[in-house]
Amino acid sequence: MYKLLNVDGRAKRAEVHTVHGVIQTPVFMNVGTAGAIKGAVSSMDLKEIKCQVELSNTYHLHVRPGDDVIKKLGGLHKFMVWDRPILTDSGGFQVFSLSGLRKIKEEGVYFSSHVDGRKIFMGPEESMQIQSNIASTIAMAFDECAPYPATREYMQNSVDRTTRWLKRCKTEMNRLNSLEDTINKKQMLFGINQGGTYEDIRIEHAKVISELDLDGYAVGGLAVGESHEEMYRILEEVVPHLPQNKPTYLMGVGTPINILESVERGVDFFDCVYPARNGRHGHVYTNFGKLNLWNAKFQLDDRPIEEGCQCPACKHYSRAYIRHLLKAKEMLGMRLCVLHNLYFYNTLMEEIREAIDKNEYQEYKNNKIENML
Amino acid sequence: MYKLLNVDGRAKRAEVHTVHGVIQTPVFMNVGTAGAIKGAVSSMDLKEIKCQVELSNTYHLHVRPGDDVIKKLGGLHKFMVWDRPILTDSGGFQVFSLSGLRKIKEEGVYFSSHVDGRKIFMGPEESMQIQSNIASTIAMAFDECAPYPATREYMQNSVDRTTRWLKRCKTEMNRLNSLEDTINKKQMLFGINQGGTYEDIRIEHAKVISELDLDGYAVGGLAVGESHEEMYRILEEVVPHLPQNKPTYLMGVGTPINILESVERGVDFFDCVYPARNGRHGHVYTNFGKLNLWNAKFQLDDRPIEEGCQCPACKHYSRAYIRHLLKAKEMLGMRLCVLHNLYFYNTLMEEIREAIDKNEYQEYKNNKIENML
Ligand SMILES: [Zn+2]
Ligand SMILES: [Zn+2]
Repeated sequence: MYKLLNVDGRAKRAEVHTVHGVIQTPVFMNVGTAGAIKGAVSSMDLKEIKCQVELSNTYHLHVRPGDDVIKKLGGLHKFMVWDRPILTDSGGFQVFSLSGLRKIKEEGVYFSSHVDGRKIFMGPEESMQIQSNIASTIAMAFDECAPYPATREYMQNSVDRTTRWLKRCKTEMNRLNSLEDTINKKQMLFGINQGGTYEDIRIEHAKVISELDLDGYAVGGLAVGESHEEMYRILEEVVPHLPQNKPTYLMGVGTPINILESVERGVDFFDCVYPARNGRHGHVYTNFGKLNLWNAKFQLDDRPIEEGCQCPACKHYSRAYIRHLLKAKEMLGMRLCVLHNLYFYNTLMEEIREAIDKNEYQEYKNNKIENML
Repeated sequence: MYKLLNVDGRAKRAEVHTVHGVIQTPVFMNVGTAGAIKGAVSSMDLKEIKCQVELSNTYHLHVRPGDDVIKKLGGLHKFMVWDRPILTDSGGFQVFSLSGLRKIKEEGVYFSSHVDGRKIFMGPEESMQIQSNIASTIAMAFDECAPYPATREYMQNSVDRTTRWLKRCKTEMNRLNSLEDTINKKQMLFGINQGGTYEDIRIEHAKVISELDLDGYAVGGLAVGESHEEMYRILEEVVPHLPQNKPTYLMGVGTPINILESVERGVDFFDCVYPARNGRHGHVYTNFGKLNLWNAKFQLDDRPIEEGCQCPACKHYSRAYIRHLLKAKEMLGMRLCVLHNLYFYNTLMEEIREAIDKNEYQEYKNNKIENML
């Protein structure tokens, strides 16, 4: 259930009620691909860094440890010990990006596992079944994330198939949610808008899927190579054709500035691997831009990554110490940087929510971006 | 200051008072080579897993980040944010084990850095200066850890030089502790007994160094290839010739059983890389023996590593989850195993202290070993 609390321009401030608790939006989901955040970050740590929603990858969990194993162990919440919402992607994106050999048919996709090469078939029903086994709070529909760039003809055919797949996803999800031994019988389903940079295809698709009355709608297939300006333009065109009283999720995006710009265009769910990946490389976010902790100028810098930051890294440790850990290849260095970066993103979302609450989003956004540049 | 609280057979129960607080012995020191425990474990974590003393390696900190850097940043306590005791080794062991090219002279050792190959000289005075810069609670004397096996002649010459070096260490430490800008003016010095498996050389050496009235005495050069039985025999012969009213430190030892046997022979300080190293490989300790979490039989095992264990891993996570993390190469898997293993060792020491307090050490030890085998 989506409860719109305030609107400031197109920016939305809302609550999403789920069986695993309430999500305050706009929200940044913290990516834990295989049921753990890369960088030795646990579900207990996630609670300390203000994470609301954990996102795991269906494809990865399907190949290892296997969604059958996760189901036997009571679902992903119990497996990774996380009682708040979890969103799982459909597996589609990994099928299209990780596996070299694949064949797209009407029924679904045939491909080889990136772990052991064994042949796997995944279609809408399989994706729903796997996500039902994982028992996430929110399941994503199985779609094709078309290559960029793609011809208009390829895109139209792909989007049409994605629409047919979406209907099959909805039917299968309803069936699974009604089964006796399904772990989360209230699993929610988000549809995904596609169409690349062809606005008319995207808008038409948005209209069609909006009629399916799903629990939320994602904009997929962006941040795949097009410019930031193109991405913003598409959001401006497409988001108004998605239901305002449902969550709008921009998949795989992005930098703090991307998020600030997209919230302004009506997006309220985000996810991205940047903060964790950058953290593992010693690149840390601050309100005055990114720092590269490998830089020699931090050797004797006894300040925290960011003054005043209440994250587990900044509360105790200095830039000099973390730099030393990175150079000495101590995993603790990565862990501290990842904790800081995720805390930075989650805190940014908190500020964004406050600004919308106060109808000060435009001013807040402009100041924030100015400081970060 | 060493305060003997109880003696049960030869097992000693004591307190060591330092400028950084009281150490309850017998104690296991947790090894953080470069100022951090390998496995993404921070100084905050150490407090949660009952660590009393952190041990860092002088050689590693000297080459990176440099003891001059650590001194400028206020010493290792401030650098790694740890307010309890720290023991630093002398750097000698690494000089002898890590650097391929080295030349031992009366003044000290010439060798090449394992990081960048640059030529380094380290003698007793240099080792004391570096440890004074690091400002550990307890500094170890600079000695030669002779190769195993070594001829009697080699060993006698080596031990004689180690005695001369020890006297120079004491003089230099006294000088450093009296300087205005020394961070820890109450740095303690432990001497090291050597002599390989030649008991008579060891006993004679123990008598000579005991007269120097140092803050503690270590038995070095064991666990380098001799059998456990030989090690125990040497402890039985040598420990009675070291002061009973001073800490006795068995360097680099060992397995839980080694520790239980050595406490019985009068040892009260231990350190070893096993628990952290084994943890990183998914090998975890329990009171009923070691488990290899890579084993397929743990795939669906939803029990903690050890039932009832209060460590941060066992309080929340299952064997099945940790096994999955290890297989998925998630750093979190290593971190959880290392936390459990160190907690296991620190808890073992707590039990040992209780058993000596109650004059039940012999019975406790026999039961404990029987269960673990
Ligand atoms: Zn921080
Ligand atoms: Zn445990």
